[in-house]
Amino acid sequence: MHDFHYVDNRLFCEDVSVAQLAKKFSTPLYVYSRRTVLDHYLKIKRAFSALKPLICFSVKSNSNLSILKTLVAHGAGLDIVSGGELRRALRVKADPKKIVYASVGKTRPEIEEAIRCGILFFNIESLQELGVISEVATRLKKEARVCIRINPDIEAYTHRYITTGTLESKFGVDFQTARIIFLNQENFKCVRILGLHMHIGSQITQSGPFLSALKKVCGFIDELKKMGIGLQWLNIGGGLGIIYRQEQPQTADEYARAVLPILKKTGLKIILEPGRFIVGNAGILVTQVLYNKDTRARRFVIVDAGMNDLVRPSLYDAYHEICPLDNRRMLSSGSMKLSDVVGPICESGDFLAKDRLLPLFDNGDLLAVMGAGAYGFSMASNYNSRRRPAEVLVKGNRYYLVRSREDFDDLTRLERIVG
Amino acid sequence: MHDFHYVDNRLFCEDVSVAQLAKKFSTPLYVYSRRTVLDHYLKIKRAFSALKPLICFSVKSNSNLSILKTLVAHGAGLDIVSGGELRRALRVKADPKKIVYASVGKTRPEIEEAIRCGILFFNIESLQELGVISEVATRLKKEARVCIRINPDIEAYTHRYITTGTLESKFGVDFQTARIIFLNQENFKCVRILGLHMHIGSQITQSGPFLSALKKVCGFIDELKKMGIGLQWLNIGGGLGIIYRQEQPQTADEYARAVLPILKKTGLKIILEPGRFIVGNAGILVTQVLYNKDTRARRFVIVDAGMNDLVRPSLYDAYHEICPLDNRRMLSSGSMKLSDVVGPICESGDFLAKDRLLPLFDNGDLLAVMGAGAYGFSMASNYNSRRRPAEVLVKGNRYYLVRSREDFDDLTRLERIVG
Repeated sequence: MHDFHYVDNRLFCEDVSVAQLAKKFSTPLYVYSRRTVLDHYLKIKRAFSALKPLICFSVKSNSNLSILKTLVAHGAGLDIVSGGELRRALRVKADPKKIVYASVGKTRPEIEEAIRCGILFFNIESLQELGVISEVATRLKKEARVCIRINPDIEAYTHRYITTGTLESKFGVDFQTARIIFLNQENFKCVRILGLHMHIGSQITQSGPFLSALKKVCGFIDELKKMGIGLQWLNIGGGLGIIYRQEQPQTADEYARAVLPILKKTGLKIILEPGRFIVGNAGILVTQVLYNKDTRARRFVIVDAGMNDLVRPSLYDAYHEICPLDNRRMLSSGSMKLSDVVGPICESGDFLAKDRLLPLFDNGDLLAVMGAGAYGFSMASNYNSRRRPAEVLVKGNRYYLVRSREDFDDLTRLERIVG
Repeated sequence: MHDFHYVDNRLFCEDVSVAQLAKKFSTPLYVYSRRTVLDHYLKIKRAFSALKPLICFSVKSNSNLSILKTLVAHGAGLDIVSGGELRRALRVKADPKKIVYASVGKTRPEIEEAIRCGILFFNIESLQELGVISEVATRLKKEARVCIRINPDIEAYTHRYITTGTLESKFGVDFQTARIIFLNQENFKCVRILGLHMHIGSQITQSGPFLSALKKVCGFIDELKKMGIGLQWLNIGGGLGIIYRQEQPQTADEYARAVLPILKKTGLKIILEPGRFIVGNAGILVTQVLYNKDTRARRFVIVDAGMNDLVRPSLYDAYHEICPLDNRRMLSSGSMKLSDVVGPICESGDFLAKDRLLPLFDNGDLLAVMGAGAYGFSMASNYNSRRRPAEVLVKGNRYYLVRSREDFDDLTRLERIVG
């Protein structure tokens, strides 16, 4: 569910007309619904309330400071993956004790900064990383808290680029390596191992893979217990799928019902790391039709947003629904034709939607690319020397420009000309 | 050919040790050879000297102002695709009379700015666009010069995302539409049609597709001539392939030999739009090994550059050679193993190279990702809140920081926090 809906055939975000925002801030434009963000966050929180888990929002899915602030102000923790995301977390005054840090490539300066500011723990992705963290902590004369990220070798049945829980992927350590780490904890000075982390991928719509992974991890927890090794935390990651098209993903409640019994039995404090589930359907990308073009092969709707603004269709073959801001277009279905919605970028990979039954739009018509709240702006680039879009946050009948559109000087500010 | 080579097993860019640059400017780091850029430019210029074509460098392949300045100072024109690229062209004082502007999605403000500054011509991608250009020019009381981009419906045999000359793609107009445009020129007020443009794709290694397309276009030129319609310009686009791996692309000379006779017969002034051919092998991405990780399935070399810095492997399955800055690593081949070189970004799509026979590197070892001069930095993003790399231009034994690394404040400068 989300707070984008038609009122008299005009698309609204909460109580604000999206066309009004496009007029005021121009296009392409990201528009987020604050209420939707919080709804999704609270849905997970309620579904898991029996366990009072720490819900760490996945910053990489949408790093906008106001989105982060909204969630942090409501008690969320943050799941970060870089020094840059740590800076963002600190900018919104997130409680370091609610920050967990995963990434296969943490650098020494990043590790040092995270230890200094006292994050809850690192998710360890390799034996060597644990050694480096120990080294840095020892030098700083501080204790580093860590969880071991287990790669449970489970196929998540999602896009190959976002499945992360098989041994073909670079993430986590296998059970044997984890065993070695736990049995040799004393070798890692100034490190305290608090628990386990798992994350098997993204946009997973069924509980099957989660359950399989979780059972393997819980078996391992039992094994450790028998060896006298007790844990405090179990971080079960993110990956909950959302509806982009016709998917029927498990709801937060269904997911909770499936995993709660297993989690309870561990007796551990639980962490969840939702990203897409919270923001995916809470954002849209608004774009304007520039030209229509009929070829013998197909109709092209050429719009002013491109793969630099939203790369998911091109990179992941992702499906995003296309909705005109004025829905009367869709109702006058006489002129419906299979169409590609494409951007202005000079490559064929620059498309937002393919083979959609769409009416003939007028130039200047405004369209919403739905479900663009996660991995939208956070992956945007300046390809073709295009300025990245502005971002607007809607809250009831008010709206806030939470990131201005880049201007041309922003694109070259760091360059100097040598001939 | 390019100016990256080993001297006593140390990688040099021209006369500068790349390791020295990495030490001074840190990693990840783009390093460009000015001499290689000019060599490639001059190779095309010489190969086509019989026709004295205007060579317009494709700005989108590498938009760094110093690369542009280098080429412009040597007489090159520029092939632009956006208002942002026009700004860049003006920043390096390119002669507007040597600027051509293609893009299926030119906006009215972009068109107006380009007309005002007097570019050589627009490459027209659709009937509607021509109408808008005429409208804007009429309003400005200026003349807009255009060429019609022909989509010759030729398969270029390259990656589906960079083939642009079939009717399945959004680019150009078919012959029938072009015919209609030429026969109704007087309907487009304040527009002067100067010629034809074709561009069938990128990284094309054989002359066959070029020749087929060119023959179709030349047949059309003859047809127009018979109708009494004379042209001045024929823009044959870019798309020349380079060596990333074992490709044996046509050289500039071979390409010229194949097409020169046909071009001469047209009697038209010729434009070429090389991008990758000029800068592709003139740049590398330097990165540092952070961790090694052996799983049962494979070895991962985890480096500090990721898909946000260089998206080609992830987006196009592109192959980039991996060369250690200290080549003695490669010579001690005892520890060679099939390896994936992967970045720190939290998705499985984040890799720079897969299944390469590589030695066991030490953490801290420096690697060069070769052939990263085109579609490297120009496609970089801040995904995972990572700062984009610095760029260095080498000129003989000197080097220049032509773009500074972003700092963390650059990432959030345009945002404001609303909770």
